[in-house]
Amino acid sequence: MLRPMLALSRRCAMAMLLGATLCSLAWDAALAQSDPLPSWRDGAPKTSIIDFVARVTTEGSADFVPPAERIATFDNDGTLWCEQPAYFQVAFALDRAKQMAPQHPEWSAKQPFKTLLEGDIKAFAATGEKGLLEVLAATHTGMTTEEFSKAVLDWMANARHPRFNRPYTELVYQPMLELLAYLRANGFKTFIVSGGGIEFMRPWTEKVYGIPPEQVVGSSGVTEFHLSPDGKPVLLKLAKMEFVDDGPGKPVGINRFIGRRPIFAFGNSDGDLQMLQWTAAGAGARFIGIVHHTDAEREYAYDRQSHVGKLDKALDEGRARGWTIVDMQRDWRTLFPSAGADRSGR
Amino acid sequence: MLRPMLALSRRCAMAMLLGATLCSLAWDAALAQSDPLPSWRDGAPKTSIIDFVARVTTEGSADFVPPAERIATFDNDGTLWCEQPAYFQVAFALDRAKQMAPQHPEWSAKQPFKTLLEGDIKAFAATGEKGLLEVLAATHTGMTTEEFSKAVLDWMANARHPRFNRPYTELVYQPMLELLAYLRANGFKTFIVSGGGIEFMRPWTEKVYGIPPEQVVGSSGVTEFHLSPDGKPVLLKLAKMEFVDDGPGKPVGINRFIGRRPIFAFGNSDGDLQMLQWTAAGAGARFIGIVHHTDAEREYAYDRQSHVGKLDKALDEGRARGWTIVDMQRDWRTLFPSAGADRSGR
Repeated sequence: MLRPMLALSRRCAMAMLLGATLCSLAWDAALAQSDPLPSWRDGAPKTSIIDFVARVTTEGSADFVPPAERIATFDNDGTLWCEQPAYFQVAFALDRAKQMAPQHPEWSAKQPFKTLLEGDIKAFAATGEKGLLEVLAATHTGMTTEEFSKAVLDWMANARHPRFNRPYTELVYQPMLELLAYLRANGFKTFIVSGGGIEFMRPWTEKVYGIPPEQVVGSSGVTEFHLSPDGKPVLLKLAKMEFVDDGPGKPVGINRFIGRRPIFAFGNSDGDLQMLQWTAAGAGARFIGIVHHTDAEREYAYDRQSHVGKLDKALDEGRARGWTIVDMQRDWRTLFPSAGADRSGR
Repeated sequence: MLRPMLALSRRCAMAMLLGATLCSLAWDAALAQSDPLPSWRDGAPKTSIIDFVARVTTEGSADFVPPAERIATFDNDGTLWCEQPAYFQVAFALDRAKQMAPQHPEWSAKQPFKTLLEGDIKAFAATGEKGLLEVLAATHTGMTTEEFSKAVLDWMANARHPRFNRPYTELVYQPMLELLAYLRANGFKTFIVSGGGIEFMRPWTEKVYGIPPEQVVGSSGVTEFHLSPDGKPVLLKLAKMEFVDDGPGKPVGINRFIGRRPIFAFGNSDGDLQMLQWTAAGAGARFIGIVHHTDAEREYAYDRQSHVGKLDKALDEGRARGWTIVDMQRDWRTLFPSAGADRSGR
């Protein structure tokens, strides 16, 4: 019986050698050709992402997570796209108020609209949060969901960022587009969990981020079902807040909309802290990331003192707990996609 | 050159004959083996489903719908599983109240708990909706989301339906499991849109229906984020309703959770009417289905007069508008899956 066994083992050895060679060639080729995160410079954040994805996707690994449970949540403002000098949704609301003014002659004598329409931004800013909320209500409600969606898309197609002079949807972070695509290629389901308005994001997130509307969680107002006299059903947007998806609202929103705890979460401000805590507290491997805006030259530099996207407590907690903190200036090779690029990331 | 050509053509003919035979065998086998809806008897509902799916999935067809927009929504109680003699969530609440009673000695002197614990179902029923809501609040709130999820799964594992003496999760409709799987195989994303509690459904819908928690829309109460003294984050279920996903709430819930209008919707009661109207009102091909419970022998027969799952206005509107109305007795060959079968439908 020795000879057949020897013959067999020689064939086995050949097959193994051949297999190993092919394997190794494939591995090298994969490494050389397809860095999944080309806009991320080599460093701790990139390594921690790739290590985490390898651990949770390797069957038999102690950290393996079945695809159905690979939920990744991302804040939007300041995490997936720029949020300075003001949240882009605020820019939308102000532009829209100006556009709607002819239908509202009473605004020319009524604050906060008067200062806004007169272009007195300083006086408008002095109306504070109350003034802003009034403009948001006036520009976001009293119409059907379909009319609002169309207004958002019209604005997105025409508005330009004051500093970069580009459409707002081109001010998304190229490294994050790559990260979203990389996670999806590894069986993750990617969600947005944003303090921004859900109806403001959904019309364009699929095209821009590859994230479909049903995977967008955000703040929202009450809508009401109506049958028009000719029997056409519509949903009317009412001037009443329903849910604020910010701070402690983020884990609430995740539980409500997703119903599963994420294993991967990325934010950039104290408004994301509870989402990061909630994600980190699950059993098993977890990835927690924070974008730190450190790049005044290519974008903006801000953290503890900023009115928009304040990052203070979450920065301390992230450092203390060893979360992955991205230094935008150091870690990101490219910030924004090249103009006109296909940014769907799919 | 004649001989070689003849020889060639003979070989061609042989090959063609063989090919045709193999083709025909494969075709017959496919037809015989892979009726996607074997529990549906031949008839108008089955034909209308298969025709609709063919139309929206055939590229180049005027009715083609891209996969991302193939959203299908299903009511749960009475549409995907049985809802008699009472909603199964009510059975859960009553069982749970009895189980919790030792921790609530005050209940022995307090209505509606007193009559319930004494087994006086008639007196309990007389407490009406108010009594039921009190029991629902007592059994569904004041705990974390994780504790509640565990309570649901424990109950599902042990409770039995009073008539069929089977676990409630085995009283799902086999024809609907096949329909869910058939739609998914054709690129649809299947959602539940139910008046039932979202946290009552999510723990088991993936296993039973192949519908993951993030594709379950339902009624819900307020939850609140808390950090325990040792820093562990939890979500507490409060005794305050947040959203009733029934009647006009269904299109509101669809808009809130899915953010896209379905092209396919199935319900069984007047509580589904607005979902069906909303779905039907979209542009392009639409499928609207209603399950009519006509089978007192194998299940229950009820419609216009029923307290549970009343089907009156939706039946009239469905007939007037040519929606697909399933006559359970006539159209469904099998009602429930065989005991212990893998019911994931995936």
